[in-house]
Amino acid sequence: MARWVRFRSAAASLGFGVLEGETIAEYSGDQFGVQQPTGFRLALASVSLLAPCAPSKIVALWNNFHALAAKLGKPAPAHPLYLIKPSSCVIGHRHTIERPLGYAGKIAFEGELGIVIGRRCHNVSVEDAARHIFGYTCINDVTAIGVMNEYPDFVQWCRSKGYDTFGAIGPLIATDLDWHSSSVVTLLDGVERQRYALSDMILSPPEIVSRLSHDMSLLPGDVIACGTSLGVGSIPEGSTVEVRIDGVGTLSNTFGAPLATLPTPT
Amino acid sequence: MARWVRFRSAAASLGFGVLEGETIAEYSGDQFGVQQPTGFRLALASVSLLAPCAPSKIVALWNNFHALAAKLGKPAPAHPLYLIKPSSCVIGHRHTIERPLGYAGKIAFEGELGIVIGRRCHNVSVEDAARHIFGYTCINDVTAIGVMNEYPDFVQWCRSKGYDTFGAIGPLIATDLDWHSSSVVTLLDGVERQRYALSDMILSPPEIVSRLSHDMSLLPGDVIACGTSLGVGSIPEGSTVEVRIDGVGTLSNTFGAPLATLPTPT
Repeated sequence: MARWVRFRSAAASLGFGVLEGETIAEYSGDQFGVQQPTGFRLALASVSLLAPCAPSKIVALWNNFHALAAKLGKPAPAHPLYLIKPSSCVIGHRHTIERPLGYAGKIAFEGELGIVIGRRCHNVSVEDAARHIFGYTCINDVTAIGVMNEYPDFVQWCRSKGYDTFGAIGPLIATDLDWHSSSVVTLLDGVERQRYALSDMILSPPEIVSRLSHDMSLLPGDVIACGTSLGVGSIPEGSTVEVRIDGVGTLSNTFGAPLATLPTPT
Repeated sequence: MARWVRFRSAAASLGFGVLEGETIAEYSGDQFGVQQPTGFRLALASVSLLAPCAPSKIVALWNNFHALAAKLGKPAPAHPLYLIKPSSCVIGHRHTIERPLGYAGKIAFEGELGIVIGRRCHNVSVEDAARHIFGYTCINDVTAIGVMNEYPDFVQWCRSKGYDTFGAIGPLIATDLDWHSSSVVTLLDGVERQRYALSDMILSPPEIVSRLSHDMSLLPGDVIACGTSLGVGSIPEGSTVEVRIDGVGTLSNTFGAPLATLPTPT
């Protein structure tokens, strides 16, 4: 299994490579295509990690865990239910989650498994889906809870989850993950708030990729957020959220500037 | 006013330029940045038009016309209500709208005004919004009506409108448009099905751009579909939909292969 990262070096150049312990073996070429090692090695501590890929879209699932569906009293969907988070919302490990200007309401964390697409796919079967998956990452599907139901008759999914900095992904992409035996753990300032087994997923990663590929072309680097389960909560100003998946790592993001320092909403 | 097109030449190279009558004056450089004429001129008839820009996202508004809001019995929204159509759904003038594999239900046309963003913007005022608008285009916001309400409690906006080929834009971008006095006209096989004045918009283009820029960064080439009004209808197999806006032009797309010739859904 390889663990891929993207980074900005101390000299401000962008790069990608494979993380080996505390060292990155740099690669050149196409992250999802033809690539080769450059021979350079960088200390992890010397670079700033970026989101581990640059998705053209994040497809974010709702209601994909049996425990949450039972709590909500909703039937298990036969096809993924989702919204699209735009590429403009993406941040990486240790980047700051920012409060939208003019929004003073609650902002929630949702720890999730992310699937990273490795090759373009359209109308692929469940059997064929696995080879289109490059790997897995951690996601914090940040949500401005207060705007979601602001208007009757139209739930504002894309708006509440699409703000800049609301798509935290990283710290890396693990090319293999035994998700059947792994869990998503979310910590708020070090205190565990979510812990759920990925085996409780309603639709598995290959099923999700196959079904979504019947809705739209999935492109290399595209990310699918597999949905969250129990334990979602709001993030106080200044708090840090960590999303941890064994075999992937820990994605950590702090919720930025205190409200008092923001300009007056217009 | 300039009329910008993107095209594939007979030699299969991609280009962009300004349409002058039946001739394209080719440009090189960045479509939304620094650019200069190449000196080459191509006959419009010799090229294949592409979508006039390559958006990172299409933000598609719902319920933005007073006449439709009145018919639906919905209050006028104070902020745009929208979903995001992924870049993978984009097609241009004369490209074929395709039926999704496995979906046998109704597919609808929605003729709309499109705003094309010219420069990155985030948190811009209404007054400042106009200079971030590059121009205007025609949109057919194609929709698989049957999947929208397939699951109770979650309206599948992104899915029903996000299929490949469901974001038809073009034929060109007009850098200026007196939208106050213009109308959107939609023809189905030459028969008028929609005709509505853009002055009936609830939120105007500068208001839309300003408000959306408070939700997310809008990038050069991004497209905002301003919502449709009365007269939406389904597209029979083999029919052609034209969306016409005076001062922009006519976007024409045929709804592709008859259902009978498609592979059996899996």
